[in-house]
Amino acid sequence: MSQSAPAVPPVIVALRAALGADEVLAGDASPRHLKDWSGVAGGLPLAILRPRSTDELSRMLAICHAHDQAVVPQGGLSGLCGGAVPGAGEVVVSLERMNRIERIDIDSGTVTVEAGAILQNVQEACREAGALLAVDLGARGSCQAGGNVATNAGGNRVIRYGNTRDLVLGLEVVLADGTVLSMMNQMVKNNAGMDLKHLFIGSEGLLGVVTRIVFKLQPLPRGVSTAIVALDDYAAALRFLRHAQQSLSGQVSAFEIMWRDYLQTAVEAGRLRAPLAGDYPVYVLIDMHCGQPDTDARRFEAMLEQAIEAGWILDAAIAQSVADAEAFWSIRDGVAEVLRDYAPTLNFDVSVPVAHIGDCAQRVRANLERDWPQLKALFFGHVGDGNLHVVVCKVPQDHDSLERIEEAVYGVVRDYGGSISAEHGIGLLKKPWLGYSRSAAEIALMHSLKQALDPKGLLNPGKVL
Amino acid sequence: MSQSAPAVPPVIVALRAALGADEVLAGDASPRHLKDWSGVAGGLPLAILRPRSTDELSRMLAICHAHDQAVVPQGGLSGLCGGAVPGAGEVVVSLERMNRIERIDIDSGTVTVEAGAILQNVQEACREAGALLAVDLGARGSCQAGGNVATNAGGNRVIRYGNTRDLVLGLEVVLADGTVLSMMNQMVKNNAGMDLKHLFIGSEGLLGVVTRIVFKLQPLPRGVSTAIVALDDYAAALRFLRHAQQSLSGQVSAFEIMWRDYLQTAVEAGRLRAPLAGDYPVYVLIDMHCGQPDTDARRFEAMLEQAIEAGWILDAAIAQSVADAEAFWSIRDGVAEVLRDYAPTLNFDVSVPVAHIGDCAQRVRANLERDWPQLKALFFGHVGDGNLHVVVCKVPQDHDSLERIEEAVYGVVRDYGGSISAEHGIGLLKKPWLGYSRSAAEIALMHSLKQALDPKGLLNPGKVL
Repeated sequence: MSQSAPAVPPVIVALRAALGADEVLAGDASPRHLKDWSGVAGGLPLAILRPRSTDELSRMLAICHAHDQAVVPQGGLSGLCGGAVPGAGEVVVSLERMNRIERIDIDSGTVTVEAGAILQNVQEACREAGALLAVDLGARGSCQAGGNVATNAGGNRVIRYGNTRDLVLGLEVVLADGTVLSMMNQMVKNNAGMDLKHLFIGSEGLLGVVTRIVFKLQPLPRGVSTAIVALDDYAAALRFLRHAQQSLSGQVSAFEIMWRDYLQTAVEAGRLRAPLAGDYPVYVLIDMHCGQPDTDARRFEAMLEQAIEAGWILDAAIAQSVADAEAFWSIRDGVAEVLRDYAPTLNFDVSVPVAHIGDCAQRVRANLERDWPQLKALFFGHVGDGNLHVVVCKVPQDHDSLERIEEAVYGVVRDYGGSISAEHGIGLLKKPWLGYSRSAAEIALMHSLKQALDPKGLLNPGKVL
Repeated sequence: MSQSAPAVPPVIVALRAALGADEVLAGDASPRHLKDWSGVAGGLPLAILRPRSTDELSRMLAICHAHDQAVVPQGGLSGLCGGAVPGAGEVVVSLERMNRIERIDIDSGTVTVEAGAILQNVQEACREAGALLAVDLGARGSCQAGGNVATNAGGNRVIRYGNTRDLVLGLEVVLADGTVLSMMNQMVKNNAGMDLKHLFIGSEGLLGVVTRIVFKLQPLPRGVSTAIVALDDYAAALRFLRHAQQSLSGQVSAFEIMWRDYLQTAVEAGRLRAPLAGDYPVYVLIDMHCGQPDTDARRFEAMLEQAIEAGWILDAAIAQSVADAEAFWSIRDGVAEVLRDYAPTLNFDVSVPVAHIGDCAQRVRANLERDWPQLKALFFGHVGDGNLHVVVCKVPQDHDSLERIEEAVYGVVRDYGGSISAEHGIGLLKKPWLGYSRSAAEIALMHSLKQALDPKGLLNPGKVL
C-alpha cells in the first residue's frame, strides 16, 4: 500500500504559484509564530506568509480572499492578550520582512516606516537624526511599529506625548480583499474628509493589515530630570500631579505611582537599593524631558521644593546622574522580576477616571483580601492616564478561581465607568469582559464596521468581538 | 373658491405630536438657520428642530428616519464651507438648547458638555475652575462644542495641544435611526475594543449627531511669553522653529508665519503699529504657555538670543506686557479687516508637509502672478502644523475665473501630497476638490461607512461626498 503525501490545500498552491515558496512557509516551519507573550495556546496555522512589500501582501490577501481563507496578522508577538495567536488552519501574515525605515524628515517632523520595523530601531534612527519618536514601551526591542499601531500601544510617556494613535499622521493598510488603502498623510492638520486611519489604529487587525506608517516626531530632549517622591496617600499623589503639571506646564513626561507593597516587592525581587530611607504608603516616579538642562533642572527642583514646603509630599530624591535615574526606573521596570518570582500571576491593565484610581485600588484590594486573604496583590500605574496595573501573585490555576479574581477587579472598574483594557487591547484573553466597558450599541457598531470592511470575516477571526 | 392652507407634511405632524410645537419650528421661522459664515446659499428647510435633550433628539431622528426625512445638524453656524447649510425641504436640527456645561472634574482633567455649549463659555468655565480647554479658534464666541468636534476644529494652539480630535476623550452621538451611542470615556488610555468616537470626529455630520462630549483639560498656564520675529525666508523660519521647539521642549504654543505682504496689508487694514522698525521678508509670531513665569520668561529670552547670535533670525520684539502681546496678535487676527477691505476674496486653507510650505507658497504665488498679475495674494499660516492660508484679494466673480484660481492653488497642493482643507472641512464648497487630496479607494471607504451607519442617506445629504 503506497502512502501519499497529504494534499496541499488549493489556497497554498495558489499562493506558492503567485509568490514563491520562500514567501509561503508551511505552518509548522517556524514555531515562534504560534504564540505571543501572553502564552495563550492557539492552533497550527496552515502557512506563514512573509511578504516583502505592500504589493506582495496585497496579492496574498487577494488570493486568501478568493479562497475564503482566514488570516492572522503578526507583528513582534509581544502582545499580552493573544491578539496575534493563530487559530488552527488559519494563515499567518508576518510583517517581519517589511522592516525598512523609509525616511526621516526632520523639517516636516515625520518618520516613515514599514510596519515590520522594530520600534527600538526606529527610535534609534530618529534619535541619531535629532528627533524623538515618542512611542515607547517595554517591548521596544521586539515589538513592531505596525503592531504598535494595530494595538494603539501606550507606555510610560503617554502623559506627555499621547498614545500611539496621537503620534500617527499617516497609514497604509491592505484590506481583507487585497485593496491597498493609502492614507500616507504627513500633516498635523488635514480635514479633507473623514480621517479613515483611526478606524485601523487600535482595531487589532480586524479591519485591515497595517503596512506603512508616518509617525509624528517630537523635539529631542536635551536632558531629563528624574525624582522619586514619597507621599501619604493617593489624594496627595493627585495634588502633587496637579502641582507638577501646572508648574512644569505640561512637560511632565512620566508620573508613575507605586503603592508600598509593589515598591517593596520590586526592590526585593530585583535586589535593588531602596530609593528613600523611610517607609511610605505611596511613591511616585516623576520625570521631565527638557530643552535647557541647567535652567530646567532648577525649575524641576523648585517644583519639588514647593511641594515639600506645602506638605504635599513627604520626601524626595532627585537623580543626580543617569545612573541614579536608571536606578529609580529599575524599580518601576522591576515588574519583570516580580512576575518571575511570584508566578503564576494574574495581571490587570485597567483604567478609571484619574480622580477615582485611589478608591478603585482600595476597593479591589478589599475585594481580594476578603475572598483570598492568602493572595498578595501589587498596585502601580500611570496616574496621569488613569491607568492602574494590578498584579495578583501566585494565583490558583483553576478556571473558576481565576474568573472570580477577574470579576473582583473588573466589577469595580465597571462601576467607575472604566476600561478593562487600558493599554493591552482585547485579543482573545479579555473578550469575555468586553461588555464590562462597552455597551451593546457600541459592540453592535463594531460588528457593523467589521461587516462593512471584511464581510467574509477573514481578518483575525475570533479576536476582540 | 376657498383657499386651503398648504398641507402639513406627515413628518412634521408626527414630530409635533411627539415633541410639541416649540421644539418644531417652521422652516422660515428663524432665518439665521439658513446659512453659515461661508455665505453659501442653501434652500428653505421644512422645519427647525430644537431638542432640549439627547432623548428628545433621539425621538426626533427616529421619526425622521421612519419618514425618510433628510436632516442637517447645526452648531454655531461659523463654518466656512457650507457644511451646515440646509437644502430645500430638509429638516434642521439645531443643538442650541443643549448647551449645558455638565461637569468640570479637575482631578480627572475632564470637562463634560452638551454639544450646543458655546466654546468660549466652556473655556471660561474651565479657566475659572483652574484648567485650560485648549480647543480654541477665532469663532470661539459663537461656535459650539459639537460643531468643533464634528469638524475637528484646528486653530492657533494646535502646534502644542493638538486638534480638537486630540482633546476629545468621550462622545455621545445619536445615529440616523435615533439610536443613542454613548462612548463617554473619561480616560486617556482605553483600548477595550475599537475606538468608535473617531468615526464621528471630523465627519461633518454625515454619520451621526454629536450630543455630548468629554474634553481633556490641560494645566492652566501661569504666564505666556510672546514675541514677533523677523527672518530672511521660509528656510530660516523652519530652522528657528526647530530651535525653539527643542530649546523650549515642546512648549511653543503658537508659531504663526506671516509673509511681508500679509503683515503690511494687515497693519494697514487694521491701522496697527508695525511691530518692528525694519522691513523684512518673513515674520513669525511665537508664544509659549508656561508655569513658572519668571524663570520661563528667561528661558524664552535665552532661546531668542541664541537664535539671533546664530543668525537664524534678524530681529525680535518680546512683548513686555499683555497689551504688547495683544498688539502682536492683532496683526495675525487682522485677517478679518483684510477680508473686509479686499472683498470679494478667495480664502484657502491648505496643508502640505512642513518642509514644503515655503516652496508651495512660492509656486502658488508664481502661478497667480503669471495668470492674474493684477491680483494681490497674501500668505500666512500655522507652520508647525503644515497649515498655509492664502487670501486672494478682489477676485473676479465669474465661475470660470474662480475655478481657475482654485486650480492654481489646489494643483500645487496636490503635487506635495497636501490637503485642500487643513482646518475647515469639505462641506459643500470644497467637494469638487476632494479628489485632489484623497484617493478613489479612500472615497469608496467613506461611502461604505456612510452606507453602514446611515443606509438611507438621511444625515447631512450632499455634503463632503
